[in-house]
Amino acid sequence: MNQLRALYLNSLSLLTDLYQLTMAYSYWQAGLHQQQAVFHLFFRRAPFQSGFTLAAGLDAVQDYLQDFHFSEADAAYLETLQGNDGKQLFSSAFIEYLRNLRLTCEVAAVREGSVVFAHQPLVRVSGDLLQCQLLETPLLNLVNFPTLIATKAARVCLAAQGDAVLEFGLRRAQGIDGGVTASRAAYIGGCAATSNVLAGQLYDIPVRGTHAHSWVMSFSEELEAFQTYAHAMPNNCVFLVDTYDTLAGVKNAIEAGRWLREQGHKMAGIRLDSGDLAKLSQEARQLLDAAGFADASIVGSSDLDEYRIAELKQQGAQIRVWGVGTKLATAYDQPALGGVYKLGAIRSGAGADWHYRVKLSNDAIKVSNPGMLQTRRYYQADKPVGDMLWNQLAVAPDAQAQQVRLQAGAQPQALPPHTHFADLLQPLMQEGAMLGEKPNVHEIRAYAQAQLALFGASLAAMPDYPVSLEKRLYELKMALLAKAAEASCG
Amino acid sequence: MNQLRALYLNSLSLLTDLYQLTMAYSYWQAGLHQQQAVFHLFFRRAPFQSGFTLAAGLDAVQDYLQDFHFSEADAAYLETLQGNDGKQLFSSAFIEYLRNLRLTCEVAAVREGSVVFAHQPLVRVSGDLLQCQLLETPLLNLVNFPTLIATKAARVCLAAQGDAVLEFGLRRAQGIDGGVTASRAAYIGGCAATSNVLAGQLYDIPVRGTHAHSWVMSFSEELEAFQTYAHAMPNNCVFLVDTYDTLAGVKNAIEAGRWLREQGHKMAGIRLDSGDLAKLSQEARQLLDAAGFADASIVGSSDLDEYRIAELKQQGAQIRVWGVGTKLATAYDQPALGGVYKLGAIRSGAGADWHYRVKLSNDAIKVSNPGMLQTRRYYQADKPVGDMLWNQLAVAPDAQAQQVRLQAGAQPQALPPHTHFADLLQPLMQEGAMLGEKPNVHEIRAYAQAQLALFGASLAAMPDYPVSLEKRLYELKMALLAKAAEASCG
Repeated sequence: MNQLRALYLNSLSLLTDLYQLTMAYSYWQAGLHQQQAVFHLFFRRAPFQSGFTLAAGLDAVQDYLQDFHFSEADAAYLETLQGNDGKQLFSSAFIEYLRNLRLTCEVAAVREGSVVFAHQPLVRVSGDLLQCQLLETPLLNLVNFPTLIATKAARVCLAAQGDAVLEFGLRRAQGIDGGVTASRAAYIGGCAATSNVLAGQLYDIPVRGTHAHSWVMSFSEELEAFQTYAHAMPNNCVFLVDTYDTLAGVKNAIEAGRWLREQGHKMAGIRLDSGDLAKLSQEARQLLDAAGFADASIVGSSDLDEYRIAELKQQGAQIRVWGVGTKLATAYDQPALGGVYKLGAIRSGAGADWHYRVKLSNDAIKVSNPGMLQTRRYYQADKPVGDMLWNQLAVAPDAQAQQVRLQAGAQPQALPPHTHFADLLQPLMQEGAMLGEKPNVHEIRAYAQAQLALFGASLAAMPDYPVSLEKRLYELKMALLAKAAEASCG
Repeated sequence: MNQLRALYLNSLSLLTDLYQLTMAYSYWQAGLHQQQAVFHLFFRRAPFQSGFTLAAGLDAVQDYLQDFHFSEADAAYLETLQGNDGKQLFSSAFIEYLRNLRLTCEVAAVREGSVVFAHQPLVRVSGDLLQCQLLETPLLNLVNFPTLIATKAARVCLAAQGDAVLEFGLRRAQGIDGGVTASRAAYIGGCAATSNVLAGQLYDIPVRGTHAHSWVMSFSEELEAFQTYAHAMPNNCVFLVDTYDTLAGVKNAIEAGRWLREQGHKMAGIRLDSGDLAKLSQEARQLLDAAGFADASIVGSSDLDEYRIAELKQQGAQIRVWGVGTKLATAYDQPALGGVYKLGAIRSGAGADWHYRVKLSNDAIKVSNPGMLQTRRYYQADKPVGDMLWNQLAVAPDAQAQQVRLQAGAQPQALPPHTHFADLLQPLMQEGAMLGEKPNVHEIRAYAQAQLALFGASLAAMPDYPVSLEKRLYELKMALLAKAAEASCG
């Protein structure tokens, strides 16, 4: 039996860093495991210096939470772990505790496909400290990567200016669900389809593909290769024309296309996978048009990303479908989103006073925000005009609330003029029960695309979108920092 | 039910690009699916400009091949796909053919953990063209990523000069098995342990972890946090000392360490996760030594990779255990290995003449090698002295064979003086049956480490290791290229 399959039959509760379990054990040993805590999952910098980020991965988070349990196999494995004295690392009583553990914490999350910004919680977990802690690593794993890829895909699609983008990255993806997850996130970000059949099967994403160089190479002549393919699959013909000589290949494709036309079929297009794509696509376009194939698309592929596509557009490339692989599916220029999960407040139990927490750092961007955070987004008619983080443990902001811009000094300002607002974090799980229906991937994609349009997302950064802290939250943070500075001097 | 779990319950035969299936269909429609073919999986350039590459992922390949089948769910999904005329893309007869398909091809592979070089086949698949084609994408997915990470890990370990390296990357990894696969590959490459408990459970890799900043932040005082942890888990104490003020943290750790010592336990060490690691580690070392904790290790983490570790070593950092996360688990500076899968020869059926194939390109490095390739490694005593690609469809090289260096012009040379040789590709599957036992991950790791030692692997490139083509193979390739050039001029 395949080990990965065996794993998924089991449970994913051990998809975590060991220190989450050793901390859980230590909280439990000290009787501190039912302290109430609030953690926020957020990133500090948008990936790719992008002006926007698309939140993704919430679907997998929901699956993970719903299925969370320690199986017998998990317990048996934990029994085998030893400390540096050769004795069992975890007591059997604790392992039994885990076996019986069911999540009771509350989880709130932004809707999948939302446009989000640095420091805004994508997921907020509150409840028993032990449970909050165990969820840190899996939630980061499940949110960081899809958010990265959905954002990358949106950028690639923006560069393609409405042309279809196909995701082709499976062969170079980081593992099996590195590929599957990338395909889903790329679709949410705006890709039209994927080459990854498994992602198509799992998520009902459109799949696309025709033939490779190896098809052509298995024949003596390219024309014979195209003709044989056309006979076999006349309703799915995009001929890859660059195995030998690209323009000769286009002519062979035209000949196969003529045969298709005679049979009442349609040559969907040709694909260019090497060489000067701008020049070759223009020459190919002329040949195709002259032969009466004006509606045959030119697909371009070969090491593409948003920068290369923008450049080719600039050069007048006649490509109308873009196949993007490695650089999209691995987010090649920044292959990880630096999402973190930080404690915002803690109390000894329900009804006790909350103690606020900030993570200190010499690097201002790394200082976390205290409280039980919520992001309020203000709209003027349908247009988002600014976001404000506020602390749900304090009084909710009203129309007179003031805000302090995150990146523009500490002067309190009035809220932007607005007609209405909405809070981005919505309850996902309460008392261990999931709330609401999961949207399907098409709904998520449509939502993401609508969001991007609302924000006027572009490849250029959008430094002017105001992201701020509610004034009292800002003052709370400053007071905590001042107290910490005093403690460290004293 | 979790969709990923549902997936693994099913089959992974759809873990492929759609074009593999459309080509398979077209071969089958044209009656060409049982042509005999030879494909090679190889890379053209070592990752990270490394002088060596460690082959990995063969374990997953074996699992994949062994389990290969199209399930009912796969068939049902394929029935739903449509061509551009709205008609079914694949005929029901073909889908039934897939349902009954069992692999009969032959697969040969280099041993997992082998040192390999550009253009050498890591996996060779021969047999029915249709089967060879279907395996392209999954084999690339399963080999590219682990090979990349094993190589990266070996480089990080070389930089650490014998210090233990711990892999910490799960939270930023690309998907669930992006993380699990990275942990396994990193262990093969030389890491001592991982933080990823699931990888520990699945592959019996040592796991390590103690506590995070959030542990300290959940208490009012750092000392209380350390003491509580020490009480709960006295046999696993590495105190993270930089939550507030690093040197104050070291003093608190020393105090907790004294208590541990009084109780007959041992403070394993401290961890530094921010700031000037070289300077702080020297200061922390002095404090620890002065307090009688000379055997407490200093663990360093925070955005490390081989370059940063080498730099810290250079600066005299007193770190003896290195925690490496994102930059290892995602191979941050080159997140994909460009492995490819190319046709080397084809014939109409068993007993017919082989036709050799090369993939042309204007870029010399992208021109593939024809034949049924094998890599012969020559040794002088135990020392590898050179590798030579040869074509198993021709006569095997003898002691008088000549070779042409891949990167040093076209002059045939004698074989290097050698005492013996070995061919790297070994049969993995024949007639659909797997051959031999799978080594466990510890055996693979030991083999990899022995290989690296044999080759004298270092962080510097090893440009002088001779990798060549057997003279007749070289001549065959040149003749095919000349013929292709002639065809394209004619």
